Amino acid sequence: MLGPGKADLLEAVDRTGSLRLAADELAMSYMRAWSLVRAMNRSFREPPVELSRGGRAHGGACLTSTGKRIVSLYREMERASREATSSSWRKLRGLLRS
Amino acid sequence: MLGPGKADLLEAVDRTGSLRLAADELAMSYMRAWSLVRAMNRSFREPPVELSRGGRAHGGACLTSTGKRIVSLYREMERASREATSSSWRKLRGLLRS
Repeated sequence: MLGPGKADLLEAVDRTGSLRLAADELAMSYMRAWSLVRAMNRSFREPPVELSRGGRAHGGACLTSTGKRIVSLYREMERASREATSSSWRKLRGLLRS
Repeated sequence: MLGPGKADLLEAVDRTGSLRLAADELAMSYMRAWSLVRAMNRSFREPPVELSRGGRAHGGACLTSTGKRIVSLYREMERASREATSSSWRKLRGLLRS
């Protein structure tokens, strides 16, 4: 439903205001970016990404408040997970060949 | 270096005492299981899996103490991560279409 690729894409859309620029930034094809956005817009009750197809903002894209909330929750999960696993992770790394 | 597939494989080896039975249990080809074990045995300072090639235990495989330690640390990381992220995860799920 959401993983690092989609979270990065949402952030890039928020940063660039454009699905094409976001895709470029992530070295992802436009088709791939579009299909990930479509999947997310279908999965969530309120679509995280709003695409504008015409007018001055032609080709523009932005995050809805739901989109911003999703990114924030996802990053919070990453942070909490990293923090909670850091001690075991350090022990595990200690077993690796240097 | 270690993910769910490798952790499951280590546990299955521990449970079955055989790389072939472990691979079967995980619906994984023997070649794939063998290559994962080889990769792990090269990555860690002490090999997690000991393979016995002859004698009564022909084809047998078991976890070394390092192997058991690796599994235990990995599962602990999973548990800690699940616990630390459960609240954000619940909120994120709440945004999904039901």
